[in-house]
Amino acid sequence: MRMLKVDTIGNTRKKILEQFSDLTVLPEVVELEEGIGRIVYEDIFSPFDVPEFNRSTVDGYAVVSKDTFGVSESLPVFLDVIDSVEMGKVAEKDLKTGQAIYVPTGGMIPKGADGMIMIEYVENLDKNTIAVYRTVAPGEGIIFKGEDIRSKELLIKKGKKLSPQDIGAIAAMGINQIKVFQKPRVAIISTGDEIVPPGERVKFGQIRDINTYSLGALIENLGGTITQRLLIADDFNLIKEKLDKVLDNNHIVLISGGSSVGLKDVTAKVIDDLGEPGVFVHGLAVKPGKPTIIGKVKNKAVFGLPGHPVSAMIICRIIVGFLINRMISGENIEDVYLEAISKENIHSSPGKETYQMVELIREDGKVYAQPIYGKSGSISTLIHADGFIRINQNTEGVNKGDKVWVIRL
Amino acid sequence: MRMLKVDTIGNTRKKILEQFSDLTVLPEVVELEEGIGRIVYEDIFSPFDVPEFNRSTVDGYAVVSKDTFGVSESLPVFLDVIDSVEMGKVAEKDLKTGQAIYVPTGGMIPKGADGMIMIEYVENLDKNTIAVYRTVAPGEGIIFKGEDIRSKELLIKKGKKLSPQDIGAIAAMGINQIKVFQKPRVAIISTGDEIVPPGERVKFGQIRDINTYSLGALIENLGGTITQRLLIADDFNLIKEKLDKVLDNNHIVLISGGSSVGLKDVTAKVIDDLGEPGVFVHGLAVKPGKPTIIGKVKNKAVFGLPGHPVSAMIICRIIVGFLINRMISGENIEDVYLEAISKENIHSSPGKETYQMVELIREDGKVYAQPIYGKSGSISTLIHADGFIRINQNTEGVNKGDKVWVIRL
Repeated sequence: MRMLKVDTIGNTRKKILEQFSDLTVLPEVVELEEGIGRIVYEDIFSPFDVPEFNRSTVDGYAVVSKDTFGVSESLPVFLDVIDSVEMGKVAEKDLKTGQAIYVPTGGMIPKGADGMIMIEYVENLDKNTIAVYRTVAPGEGIIFKGEDIRSKELLIKKGKKLSPQDIGAIAAMGINQIKVFQKPRVAIISTGDEIVPPGERVKFGQIRDINTYSLGALIENLGGTITQRLLIADDFNLIKEKLDKVLDNNHIVLISGGSSVGLKDVTAKVIDDLGEPGVFVHGLAVKPGKPTIIGKVKNKAVFGLPGHPVSAMIICRIIVGFLINRMISGENIEDVYLEAISKENIHSSPGKETYQMVELIREDGKVYAQPIYGKSGSISTLIHADGFIRINQNTEGVNKGDKVWVIRL
Repeated sequence: MRMLKVDTIGNTRKKILEQFSDLTVLPEVVELEEGIGRIVYEDIFSPFDVPEFNRSTVDGYAVVSKDTFGVSESLPVFLDVIDSVEMGKVAEKDLKTGQAIYVPTGGMIPKGADGMIMIEYVENLDKNTIAVYRTVAPGEGIIFKGEDIRSKELLIKKGKKLSPQDIGAIAAMGINQIKVFQKPRVAIISTGDEIVPPGERVKFGQIRDINTYSLGALIENLGGTITQRLLIADDFNLIKEKLDKVLDNNHIVLISGGSSVGLKDVTAKVIDDLGEPGVFVHGLAVKPGKPTIIGKVKNKAVFGLPGHPVSAMIICRIIVGFLINRMISGENIEDVYLEAISKENIHSSPGKETYQMVELIREDGKVYAQPIYGKSGSISTLIHADGFIRINQNTEGVNKGDKVWVIRL
């Protein structure tokens, strides 16, 4: 008989790292405009200096700064305007002392110039002469070659999720295709004789399929892609046959139990039957989510999740999400949480990490977390929950007014 | 000559609401599994009670509670087991006093029963008799019909962005297709002789196209869809012709200027030339983002955005995002901000709303906002920024240690 020693979340994550160290996804190349939200596969370095040439940050005249030293409103210096640089064109003439060249914002600074005087401080005396009424400091009004970004500088690290501003920065580098991680492929198997998909009529007493939908959407949010959704009756051989098949095509398979008694054991047995090492986590020291099973078959990950929709989502977020995150970044990124203030006292279960669904409420410029309880009734909990909080197994709970970190779903 | 009176953000948003009150998008029907992140087009009501029948929340026996009143460890009551309800099946027999029926968790409570006794507190004396050692309160171990959700109850409001948990709740209602807002169609025109798309070779002095990429990705994040990206030289007639054309197919057109002098006026003239009422916002009292133009042509929205990538993103987020948000929800939803602590003093511009790009830094369980400054050099700013903060025009700035709200990009 199998020893039912439950694992802590920390221990479970450690085991996942060990077991699935070589469960990886390949890169794929996407067009830059399709890159939003994707995970960068390899470090991106700047291929050149930005700017690539000394460039003006103002509309005005490029000058030799020392020509302007000591000038003032009452004592201007007169310079010969010898050229005008066009935007997007090369500055062709060199500048010598006593001369000025017009340069628009963003335009190239001519050779010999080391400062820009803004048009506001210049008087055009005739077509070829200006009076300058202010001193220009060396470097003023210029952004120098490589000042923003140096050639070969690390721009975006492997594992970063691309934001709109990253996409803009990559475009600035002249890169129009990027290598990103393929999305880990996930199949969901929902088991139970009594489960009916949403489109079909339900006979009195049957239960609608919720988990393939909520878990599927969550997996997409977590960066995976759902390849298959299967609804299978509680038949050991059928579940085993289907699982065996979907393992070939996917990195991860989620088995979501109905509420049938003994299903947990069926799932474990199916996994063990299909090959080594089989089940390596059999129960978690958390509430809710205890009846969670994790196994390895054909070097793929199989998760047996609780049937209760709220429990299934929490475990999917903290455990399956952890594996997906590792697969697409190669690093163990910390989850990003949202800080809030607890609206109520929240009790925890002694010796177990406790997760509590909460609704976020904004009041007086503050964000509050309102715990949502439901008497086995999970649909209204699902509707109101914005996320959940984690209460450490060594603390007694959360007091009203305490700061909490909310994990978004 | 046009009066160049700049508008505040508040005033601009008011004008946008007035001008585009009938710029709307149609609904479309999508499969539930495609619904994640989409915006619900109409209120969704529960079509039935949840649960649809009285259901057990424990594994045990359905009883008439008053049969158990006064029983104890030493004084059990003996009940006749007359049936066993199967999961997903109808409870066929009625229960009378002195009887019990086995019901698994989630199973249907038989008629006549008003409480459940858990198997832990029961002794099976023979196949048809149990001893009950505990009192069962009326209603104990039962979730009643409609207790979780009542028939015709409002489940999900029009305008809600669907989360995984919403998708699960909708599945529970037997609904497998949902009506969502179509994504507002947005075209981006980037103008400037000197601008080159990322894939092409840049001649010395030219500038790479950044804004069509960063703005395009941001629009997708904000809930719109990019239909076209055009790069057009600084030619009045060409810009006018192209804008006229793309207006037919889109709700919103963004014109992103290069850094050419006078482009702002060209954009305004093109918009005014194409029809009434033309430009109705000509400059914003913000920093950065002052040279922003908003016009209405053919009942569509045209935005002339600043050429500077950082300014363009900020204005797109707070102004274009505001319009998109109105179009797909019919309501003025408040932006969701993230609270952080300012790492430095941040100065504001007197009389202007000031926006400052920041990087989020987690230290010691706290989230800090580190302002990012760049001398006209915006690429490194783009790479490090996680969002920006807004400093009200009536305040003098932010002090180190102050709480700030970060608007994510």
